[in-house]
Amino acid sequence: MPTPATEFGYVPDAWTERHLLDLERLSAEQLRLILDTAVRFKAATDGCRTKLPLLAGRTLANLFFENSTRTRNSFSLAARRLGADTVEFTASGSSVSKGESLIDTAKTIEAMNVDVAVVRHHTPGVPHLLGQALRCSVVNAGDGPHEHPTQGLLDIMTIREHRGEISGKTVALVGDIAHSRTARSNIWGLKKLGAHVIVCGPATLVSRRWEELGVEVAYHLDEILPRCDVLNLLRIQFERQYTRPFPSVREYALLYAMNGKRMARAKENILIMAPGPINRGVEITPDVADGPHSVILNQVTNGLAVRMAVVWLLCGPRQLQTTGQF
Amino acid sequence: MPTPATEFGYVPDAWTERHLLDLERLSAEQLRLILDTAVRFKAATDGCRTKLPLLAGRTLANLFFENSTRTRNSFSLAARRLGADTVEFTASGSSVSKGESLIDTAKTIEAMNVDVAVVRHHTPGVPHLLGQALRCSVVNAGDGPHEHPTQGLLDIMTIREHRGEISGKTVALVGDIAHSRTARSNIWGLKKLGAHVIVCGPATLVSRRWEELGVEVAYHLDEILPRCDVLNLLRIQFERQYTRPFPSVREYALLYAMNGKRMARAKENILIMAPGPINRGVEITPDVADGPHSVILNQVTNGLAVRMAVVWLLCGPRQLQTTGQF
Amino acid sequence: MPTPATEFGYVPDAWTERHLLDLERLSAEQLRLILDTAVRFKAATDGCRTKLPLLAGRTLANLFFENSTRTRNSFSLAARRLGADTVEFTASGSSVSKGESLIDTAKTIEAMNVDVAVVRHHTPGVPHLLGQALRCSVVNAGDGPHEHPTQGLLDIMTIREHRGEISGKTVALVGDIAHSRTARSNIWGLKKLGAHVIVCGPATLVSRRWEELGVEVAYHLDEILPRCDVLNLLRIQFERQYTRPFPSVREYALLYAMNGKRMARAKENILIMAPGPINRGVEITPDVADGPHSVILNQVTNGLAVRMAVVWLLCGPRQLQTTGQF
Repeated sequence: MPTPATEFGYVPDAWTERHLLDLERLSAEQLRLILDTAVRFKAATDGCRTKLPLLAGRTLANLFFENSTRTRNSFSLAARRLGADTVEFTASGSSVSKGESLIDTAKTIEAMNVDVAVVRHHTPGVPHLLGQALRCSVVNAGDGPHEHPTQGLLDIMTIREHRGEISGKTVALVGDIAHSRTARSNIWGLKKLGAHVIVCGPATLVSRRWEELGVEVAYHLDEILPRCDVLNLLRIQFERQYTRPFPSVREYALLYAMNGKRMARAKENILIMAPGPINRGVEITPDVADGPHSVILNQVTNGLAVRMAVVWLLCGPRQLQTTGQF
Repeated sequence: MPTPATEFGYVPDAWTERHLLDLERLSAEQLRLILDTAVRFKAATDGCRTKLPLLAGRTLANLFFENSTRTRNSFSLAARRLGADTVEFTASGSSVSKGESLIDTAKTIEAMNVDVAVVRHHTPGVPHLLGQALRCSVVNAGDGPHEHPTQGLLDIMTIREHRGEISGKTVALVGDIAHSRTARSNIWGLKKLGAHVIVCGPATLVSRRWEELGVEVAYHLDEILPRCDVLNLLRIQFERQYTRPFPSVREYALLYAMNGKRMARAKENILIMAPGPINRGVEITPDVADGPHSVILNQVTNGLAVRMAVVWLLCGPRQLQTTGQF
Repeated sequence: MPTPATEFGYVPDAWTERHLLDLERLSAEQLRLILDTAVRFKAATDGCRTKLPLLAGRTLANLFFENSTRTRNSFSLAARRLGADTVEFTASGSSVSKGESLIDTAKTIEAMNVDVAVVRHHTPGVPHLLGQALRCSVVNAGDGPHEHPTQGLLDIMTIREHRGEISGKTVALVGDIAHSRTARSNIWGLKKLGAHVIVCGPATLVSRRWEELGVEVAYHLDEILPRCDVLNLLRIQFERQYTRPFPSVREYALLYAMNGKRMARAKENILIMAPGPINRGVEITPDVADGPHSVILNQVTNGLAVRMAVVWLLCGPRQLQTTGQF
C-alpha cells in the first residue's frame, strides 16, 4: 500500500497556474483536476479528518479584509491538515490603519516567507491585483460580489458526489444573484462542466443581462422547480444592499423559500444546497434544511477537501518539480 | 519504560460520557477519574510543560460567545500539548451577526470535522443544547451564572494536590455567589467528594436557598474563618450585576477581604484560592495573594492538566475502542 | 552532515541574559552573538523558509497591549519555525478589562507554562517590570517610544548582510525621532558596533539633546546625504502625536522624503531602509521604495531570523545546560 506522500507525490501536468483567482479563467480540465484531487484527499484522510502532512514547513496566510468565520477557518484547517503553518491577518488592528498601501501590506506578509496568501476583500479584483504584485500564490476567498472560486468548487464537488457527472444537470441558483460571488463562481464552473444553469429571484436581484453568461433567467421558482436537479439557495445578503430589493422578507419567502410544499412538486431526488450561513424561514424552511435532500453540511466538509486540493496544487507539485523530493 | 502513548493507551471503563456539561450530573467515581487522569498527565509532561501527542490529527474548536482570555488559551494550550489542532471562533466577526442560528453555527463548525467543541455563552444551558444537536463532544466553558465544570475540577485538583483527600475538608466559597458559575461547579464537585461547603457573602449575593444544595450559608467571614481548611475567594463580577449589591467596595473589603489580620486567625495550614482574575484590595489583599498559603497560580497550571484530561477522556479512549490502535 | 539539532546544539558562553529588554544594556559581543546566530538560522532554514524544530514543546506567548500585525506575526512565525507553540493575548477581550493588574495578567499567562513572553505596551518600562516579576523570559516588542530591540537588530542585520561590518559606517535615521522606539534601539546597537549615527528631521521631532547619546543631530537631509552609507526612513507616527509637528505632509516630504532627485546625490551604493509600514509619498517615494537600493522587504525576512535567534538564545541553550540533552 503506498504511503500518502507517495500517493500524492505526482505532478499533475494539467496544473500550471500560480493562483486561484476565479473560475472564469479555468478550463474544464483544470476544474476536474481540482475536483478529482479533492476527492482523493477526502478519501485519503477519512473524510478530511486525519492529517496528510504533504506541506510541512509551508505557510498559508489568511488576509481577510472582510469579516469571515467559516471560510477563514476552513482554509486554516485545510492548511493544517496538510501540515502547513497558518498566520492570520485581519484588517482591524493591522498596519492598513496606519496608512500602509494594500500591496505593501501584502508584500510585507509575503516577505515573512508565506507560500499561499488567501485574500478576501470587498473590492472586486483585489486578489488579481495582489496576484500580479506578489511572488507567492494567491487564492481569492471572495472579492466583493465578483467571485469566490473555492465556494463554487465545493458546491460542484458536492453535486458530483451525490448525483454524479455535472454534464446535463439542471442547477438553479435562487435568490440574491446580484450581490452573490457564489453565484458567479457557480455559473462559470457549472457551465464549463456542461450543466444547464438557471438564475432565479426577484427582478430587483436578477437582471435579464445574466443571459449573456449563457444562463437561463427566471423570476418564478414554481415555474422552473419541476425541471431542477439541484437548488442552490443563496442567502439574502442584507449587509450588501443599499436599498430594499423586495417589500418584505415574508413576501420573499412566499415566492422563493424552499419549503415542504415546494419539495412535494420537485424532482424526487432533488438536491438542496445552500452556501450558508442560512436564514431559516427566509430562503429555506427548517424541514427542508434539515431534511433528507439537504447536503448543506456536506458542503462544509467538502470545503475542507477542495481547499486542501487547491492549496496543494498551488504550492505542492510545483515545488516538487523544483526540489525533486517530497 | 513505557512510552507515553502506551502509558495512556488504556480505556477507562468508568468514562462513558460524550460531553462535559456540568459537574452536577457526574458521579464521584467520574470526578475522581478526571482528577486522577489530570494528575497523571501533569506528572507525565513535567507539570504540563512537554507534549504528549495522544490526539494528533484531532481538532478542538473554541466557540466563545463571551470574551475570555485565560480559559480559551488554557483549552487551546491543553489541546496542543496533546498534539491536537485548534480553531478559534468568536461571536464578533462571525456568521452569528449575519442572522445564523446558534445551532447552525455550531453544526457548521462541526462539519469541519471538529472533535471537541468548547463552548462559552452568557445563557445558561447553551452547551447542553449544543450537546444534543451535535455529534462531536461539547465542553461547557461557562454558561452564564450556571456552571463552569473545568474551573470546579481545577479548584478541586489543587485542593487535593496540597491537602490530600477532599472528604471531610471544610471549603468556604466567599463573595459573589449569586453570579458565580465557579461556585456552582465547586459546590457540586466538592459535595460529591465529601467536603463540607460553606457559601459566604453579603445577603444580597448569598441567598438562604443555597441550603437546598446541602451547603452551609454564612454572612460573616470572621465567624466561619477558624473552621475553614480552604478559602476560595470569588471575584465580585461587576459586569454581571444590574444593581449595586453593597454600599461600597471599601465596605465589602472590610467584611470579606482576606487580609493579613484575618490570616492570623485562620487555621495554620489554610489554603487560599481564587479563580482569577483577582481584584487586589477587594476580595484579597496583596500580602495574602502573594503569600505562602496562596495557590492561585497553581490553579492556573492545574487548569491545563484538567483540560488535557477532559479533552483526552472525551475523544481519546472512545476512539481507541473504535479503531483498535493508538 | 550534521543534523540541525546538532549544529545548533551548542551553548554560547556569551549569552547569559534571561530577557531581551533593550539594546542599551547589551554588549557589542552579545549583539554580535545574536546577529551571528540569526545569520546561521537564516542559512540553515533556506532563508527562514523551512523548519528547525529545536524548541518543540516550548511555548511563546504574544502579550500585545497595543495593536500590531507584522511584529506579532513575525514572532509567532519565528517561534513556529523553531517548532514551538504560540498563544496570543490581546488587551481587548482579556481580563485586563475586568480590573486585573498587569503583573497578575502576565503571571497567569506564565503559569500556563509559557517559556517566552513577548510584550508590547504603550508605557515605557513595562517589559522591564514584567521581566522582574516573571520567571519566564521576556522580550520587549516595543514599549512606547522607548525601545524595540528586535527591530534594531533586524535593521543592523540587514546592513551587515548588504554592506559588511557596521564599524565605520554612517547611518542616518530620518524622520520622527522623538516618538521612535526604532530610533533608540538602532542608536544603541549601531553605536556599540562602531557606526557613526546621525538623527535627522524637523526640530520639532529631533532635539539637540540627542547629542548626549553620542549621535550627530541634523536638520537638513540634503546636507548630510552625501556622507550617508545607510538611510533608515522612519514613519511619521501620526498616532503618537498630540500636536502637529510640521505645517503639512507636503512640506515634510519636500524637506525629508527620499526621492529620485535625492538618490542622484547620494553615495552610489547607499542602502535605503524603512521599518514599515511605509507612507508612500511622505518619507519615501515609490521609485525609491521599489528601487534597487531598497532593502525594505529584506528587513521583514531578517525579522524572522533575528526573532528565531533571540527566542532560541533565551530559552534554548540555557535549558540545554539543565537537561544535558537536545
